[in-house]
Amino acid sequence: MSLDKVQALTFDVFGTVVDWRSSVARELAAVFAPRGEQRDWPALADRWRARYQPAMEAVRSGRRPWVKLDQLHRENLEQLLAELDLGGLDEAELDQLNRAWHRLDPWPDVVAGLARLRRRYILATLSNGNVALMVNLARHGGLPWDAILGAEVAQAYKPLPAAYLRTADYLGLPPAACMMVAAHNDDLVVAGALGFRTAFVARPQEHGPGQTKDRSADHAFDVVANDFGDLAGQLGC
Amino acid sequence: MSLDKVQALTFDVFGTVVDWRSSVARELAAVFAPRGEQRDWPALADRWRARYQPAMEAVRSGRRPWVKLDQLHRENLEQLLAELDLGGLDEAELDQLNRAWHRLDPWPDVVAGLARLRRRYILATLSNGNVALMVNLARHGGLPWDAILGAEVAQAYKPLPAAYLRTADYLGLPPAACMMVAAHNDDLVVAGALGFRTAFVARPQEHGPGQTKDRSADHAFDVVANDFGDLAGQLGC
Repeated sequence: MSLDKVQALTFDVFGTVVDWRSSVARELAAVFAPRGEQRDWPALADRWRARYQPAMEAVRSGRRPWVKLDQLHRENLEQLLAELDLGGLDEAELDQLNRAWHRLDPWPDVVAGLARLRRRYILATLSNGNVALMVNLARHGGLPWDAILGAEVAQAYKPLPAAYLRTADYLGLPPAACMMVAAHNDDLVVAGALGFRTAFVARPQEHGPGQTKDRSADHAFDVVANDFGDLAGQLGC
Repeated sequence: MSLDKVQALTFDVFGTVVDWRSSVARELAAVFAPRGEQRDWPALADRWRARYQPAMEAVRSGRRPWVKLDQLHRENLEQLLAELDLGGLDEAELDQLNRAWHRLDPWPDVVAGLARLRRRYILATLSNGNVALMVNLARHGGLPWDAILGAEVAQAYKPLPAAYLRTADYLGLPPAACMMVAAHNDDLVVAGALGFRTAFVARPQEHGPGQTKDRSADHAFDVVANDFGDLAGQLGC
């Protein structure tokens, strides 16, 4: 079949590989609950994450020079805490909280699924997360990447084409030999238009119980899977 | 001690981690011996390797734009074969032979040593090899890198400072939190001048039994080790 040429799988990470919402909510609670704060921590995680795309857009558009996602996360955190009137953290505590994004837990099916997939495919990240963040996530969760690629080494945030095309070029492969794996329709539509093969993995709880977007594949992707085990099975691993 | 701040080890690869000479000689013999050729294969490996620095120098100096090491290896191979009057390989055979550099064996102490070192340190490549070459070497030899960094993602060949400094920046670390591990005095002198900590690992057989250069550490590096097991021991891993 047309997937025979695929040699590498390139992964979206936030939402697809790791459950950022639960992990960030847990870290926010761990910092602020002992200070007597009672908030809706998952909703605060959502609000932190809501600032993610606009912050990257300033870079994508050229309005500001390249900055790592760690720095965008930090700026977004400070704005959010000011808005919420949550204060009292010193520099070390702010940095530690910002690094919650380095300690996100993988979804339960991920580690076993990646181990199966890695027997046959090169596995690389194609995330907007910076290299250090991705390295720490991998060590935290036991993710067996062959290479950390994506936005920082491409110096372009998804969905700019360069993020995808430079990742394929680093792998020494044409886009058609790469399969983008993501829980987000938009990511896969862009990758597919650039010549990547596409695999949608459903993460209907990424945004919590009320998720409306990306509950299922809205396009004819090459593979549509329920989780990484299902993906490995469909790819014959 | 002053090594307490070190969080990442960055590795030279050709010669330090892998035995390129024996591996390349074996592949040259495997291609040409069945064609009735009898040559000194290790000497031919040396001659292929001897074209490595001049080829990179054309890029370092700006005389030609960035090209991957795979392409330099290929150009060097074609020049060498012409010089030796060794011919008859078609495109697929040339490509396969050029990829001998993707299948170099690690020295015998490497895999166990890296496993010990990885418990405590982030392990990254800081090689002039391109990403795809490094990924294939890692899969071939079972090398547990946390990240493939170095020349290609820095777009600068060692010993240009950018190769080292951009690698540290990708790791989110100041140079002083990185230790360069190499079997080559020159590499460590440059890294040390840029603020890296330095570890010399002796590979007195890299260039075969007649090796004269880099048989031992010529400078006061932070660590001088006999192999990766010794390095792990000295670093308390």
